[in-house]
Amino acid sequence: MHIGILHHPKIPESQTLAAAMQAWLHDRGDVAWLGSSWHTADIEEHLHALDLLITLGGDGTMLRAGRIAARHDLPILGINMGRLGFLAEVQPAEWQQELPKVLAGQFWLEKRMMLQAQVWRGEQLLDDALAALNDVVVSRGSLARVVRIVAEVNGSVLTTYVADGVIVSTPTGSTAYALAAGGPILPPELRNILLLPIAPHLSLARSVVLDRGAVVSLHVRTDHTAILTVDGQFLIDLEDGDKVTVTSSPHTASFVRLQPRSYFYKTLLERLKWTI
Amino acid sequence: MHIGILHHPKIPESQTLAAAMQAWLHDRGDVAWLGSSWHTADIEEHLHALDLLITLGGDGTMLRAGRIAARHDLPILGINMGRLGFLAEVQPAEWQQELPKVLAGQFWLEKRMMLQAQVWRGEQLLDDALAALNDVVVSRGSLARVVRIVAEVNGSVLTTYVADGVIVSTPTGSTAYALAAGGPILPPELRNILLLPIAPHLSLARSVVLDRGAVVSLHVRTDHTAILTVDGQFLIDLEDGDKVTVTSSPHTASFVRLQPRSYFYKTLLERLKWTI
Amino acid sequence: MHIGILHHPKIPESQTLAAAMQAWLHDRGDVAWLGSSWHTADIEEHLHALDLLITLGGDGTMLRAGRIAARHDLPILGINMGRLGFLAEVQPAEWQQELPKVLAGQFWLEKRMMLQAQVWRGEQLLDDALAALNDVVVSRGSLARVVRIVAEVNGSVLTTYVADGVIVSTPTGSTAYALAAGGPILPPELRNILLLPIAPHLSLARSVVLDRGAVVSLHVRTDHTAILTVDGQFLIDLEDGDKVTVTSSPHTASFVRLQPRSYFYKTLLERLKWTI
Amino acid sequence: MHIGILHHPKIPESQTLAAAMQAWLHDRGDVAWLGSSWHTADIEEHLHALDLLITLGGDGTMLRAGRIAARHDLPILGINMGRLGFLAEVQPAEWQQELPKVLAGQFWLEKRMMLQAQVWRGEQLLDDALAALNDVVVSRGSLARVVRIVAEVNGSVLTTYVADGVIVSTPTGSTAYALAAGGPILPPELRNILLLPIAPHLSLARSVVLDRGAVVSLHVRTDHTAILTVDGQFLIDLEDGDKVTVTSSPHTASFVRLQPRSYFYKTLLERLKWTI
Repeated sequence: MHIGILHHPKIPESQTLAAAMQAWLHDRGDVAWLGSSWHTADIEEHLHALDLLITLGGDGTMLRAGRIAARHDLPILGINMGRLGFLAEVQPAEWQQELPKVLAGQFWLEKRMMLQAQVWRGEQLLDDALAALNDVVVSRGSLARVVRIVAEVNGSVLTTYVADGVIVSTPTGSTAYALAAGGPILPPELRNILLLPIAPHLSLARSVVLDRGAVVSLHVRTDHTAILTVDGQFLIDLEDGDKVTVTSSPHTASFVRLQPRSYFYKTLLERLKWTI
Repeated sequence: MHIGILHHPKIPESQTLAAAMQAWLHDRGDVAWLGSSWHTADIEEHLHALDLLITLGGDGTMLRAGRIAARHDLPILGINMGRLGFLAEVQPAEWQQELPKVLAGQFWLEKRMMLQAQVWRGEQLLDDALAALNDVVVSRGSLARVVRIVAEVNGSVLTTYVADGVIVSTPTGSTAYALAAGGPILPPELRNILLLPIAPHLSLARSVVLDRGAVVSLHVRTDHTAILTVDGQFLIDLEDGDKVTVTSSPHTASFVRLQPRSYFYKTLLERLKWTI
Repeated sequence: MHIGILHHPKIPESQTLAAAMQAWLHDRGDVAWLGSSWHTADIEEHLHALDLLITLGGDGTMLRAGRIAARHDLPILGINMGRLGFLAEVQPAEWQQELPKVLAGQFWLEKRMMLQAQVWRGEQLLDDALAALNDVVVSRGSLARVVRIVAEVNGSVLTTYVADGVIVSTPTGSTAYALAAGGPILPPELRNILLLPIAPHLSLARSVVLDRGAVVSLHVRTDHTAILTVDGQFLIDLEDGDKVTVTSSPHTASFVRLQPRSYFYKTLLERLKWTI
Repeated sequence: MHIGILHHPKIPESQTLAAAMQAWLHDRGDVAWLGSSWHTADIEEHLHALDLLITLGGDGTMLRAGRIAARHDLPILGINMGRLGFLAEVQPAEWQQELPKVLAGQFWLEKRMMLQAQVWRGEQLLDDALAALNDVVVSRGSLARVVRIVAEVNGSVLTTYVADGVIVSTPTGSTAYALAAGGPILPPELRNILLLPIAPHLSLARSVVLDRGAVVSLHVRTDHTAILTVDGQFLIDLEDGDKVTVTSSPHTASFVRLQPRSYFYKTLLERLKWTI
């Protein structure tokens, strides 16, 4: 098998562990390529030859790898080297016990829906096919307090949000920023788009759950700047009149799972601290 | 065409209007049967011969008719004679203008997902195939303040709710009791099950959105009584140890719509008072 | 000193512990009277002669004792024999270590505001001077889903709630039912009245915090029955047109505290599970 | 009488109206000084000689004037030239009818509590005695998504918020940003401090209502920048380790009111759109 291993450039132990894994895989007769989870171009070059991608890091590392690997349907195994998150599957201490199972095919693949976004300034397409595994967020810049965002669903106006921002989220993202903003929880196997405002001021406050086929357009109305963030990373400054269109992506991220299919609820309750 | 017209026994004007409609339909050469929306057995007897069912009443009347007609895939046209609701399509003053359009086939059919519930006491099935168009609710009786409800999804324990109750809702029900309990909004075309507690006390508070294929089991733990309510109507007293199982129904309710497909969001924002 | 000790009639260990305390106090030369926390009349008869009241039970036992002892300004020491709650001060295993401190005056007194309620049916006063340490709640009976409650503050209409019920709460009650209904947290030393609905349906949803001098009137509008509950105990069936008036009480409950004055926040975060 | 009139530099009609008022007052024999609501130094110079300050603008203009005038206990009459807000008292078309009442003393004074904040970087006091009539907000800068803020109340740690920010609000501010963040409503006469997070991520989410005597300290923990905003205006960039301390101010803002004392609830329900 051809296996890619991505370490996290800011976590030295992830490099040590990556090297140990590589050695172990070579001993088995497998081919292992090592890379940094931050070098997107480098990763994309190697992806086509890989059968499995192992990430050493936190949820952010898996999001990043997930977005890249989705176009190639490449399965990802997350080794957790961050704070406890929602995405990783294996603890570092367990890798020698769990990796053989994965290589023997004793796992199930969790396919997670993604979003894609386009940014329009008048007739000009500023950015195309931005991929999100968590969420696409239009929000205030640092200085202005609220933005006005006219939201359309399938070409019909839903409402004008007056808020710190608006989140368009996948089920995966429902346990990230959308959770902080008060949204519902959608388990990973769902195929829905979640739409909700951040700190809405005298405007629609409830989350709206949409069909995977929905087209969401967010029209920015602001005297100041707004910003576009995808999966928590700043992408572009938005101006008054800009439009961000979000739909579900044709690609899905594939995560390797060894735990029972009900693992999500167990993890959820542990993170929410309500294990009783 | 064979058309059923259901008046509301407590709204005298609905009887007058039903008679006027019947006369108008007879003049056209159609057959119109009049009945009370409260006489379920009577309605069921006539259903198989009908091409359309017109209800004169509020949302409650449409829910009732929707549950009955779903088994026969019979389309329902709601004439609103209640407070402003989410379901009816035509105002009483407009019936002469709108009904010809319906009879000419100038409408679209909105198919709304339903739930079905079973109630178990030990090995004994107390009630089978209860149909809900809004929601199935397990809640405290009047005297006890909280009930404990162990919720399972697809056979795995999700959590133990300590609350006034737990709601299992359709998308249609997301604008009913679930909205009051803090849930998200699901437009009518969705095929999801919504699960959320009422006034949760130091237990899971967030709504969970599930796939239409999910099996939700609610195990009652209480020293007092709990009650089972379906679409807002009391059904049965529950005891400690009872289990209510909820799944999506094979049937859907069919509502006749003349408004554009985006009507739902318009109605929603009007009801929520955020029309800006 | 004259000390009352109240056991909980349903917790056998509380009787054993009460007897042990009594013996220990007698050895010290103090006078100890034993009683049941459920025998209000009995307790009231002995109150005037007591310098301290010790309760063995949970939060419910302290609420009950607090309401009775408030009229006499009698300090209460809570020994926790229930689930972890917000009110008790000493764990059973620690009583021999902590009680001497209390008897030596090494404690501070926490004064907690109370509410009093009157119930009116037309000109008739049904009930007067009901005392609440947590909350006064007007809510649906078991069969009807919502009640309409017109709320007045200081003689002016605030709003009409359409809801499962309305809670008028003390700061103490802000961590009880009001917390489940979504209310804010008020530390025990505050002198405010908290007003909030339970599961509000398309009506005012936000909590309102009022001055201790506020007069809150709740006018019941229902086709079915509503109920009045005080500190979680059912009191009376309410009819359409009944009015419940709530003000702050001239009495305060006095709890003996040995922990630092910041104990409340520590307890709060532990109960809410957010200790980080 | 000596009356100051503040126009809004961006609203031309406010200058026309200010001039008309000045002429009218001169005809009566009163002295009227005209100024811009944005020229703080200019206003401060004239304040000591004034008996009344009239502001022509929106809520922002009244907040600004309120902060300045509070130190001199100078009453403010707000003429609303902005969007409908919570603070102004008189509509522009009504000034000739209402102003004579004010000059004849036929009004009541509404005293609104204020906050003051200090900013510390290590031992260095960056800013002292910042005055807030709405709120003091520590929040993320534009690029980072969350900040960690350790909140202390009266010297004891309450919790570590992981959030978009934390709001410390007056009762006046409870209908501003705090309302958008999910907080309770505090009528203007209250003397409480409201503490709540914006979009809290797996950390304390509930609002906490504090006594006017409370000392709130917010310790910033961030790898990126945080910002301090007072009454919606950006003040200063905060660094990891900075501390913002907030207490109630010795000054209160004084607003002239002609409406009945219950006006606040009427305005509130109109803004929240729940007038039924």
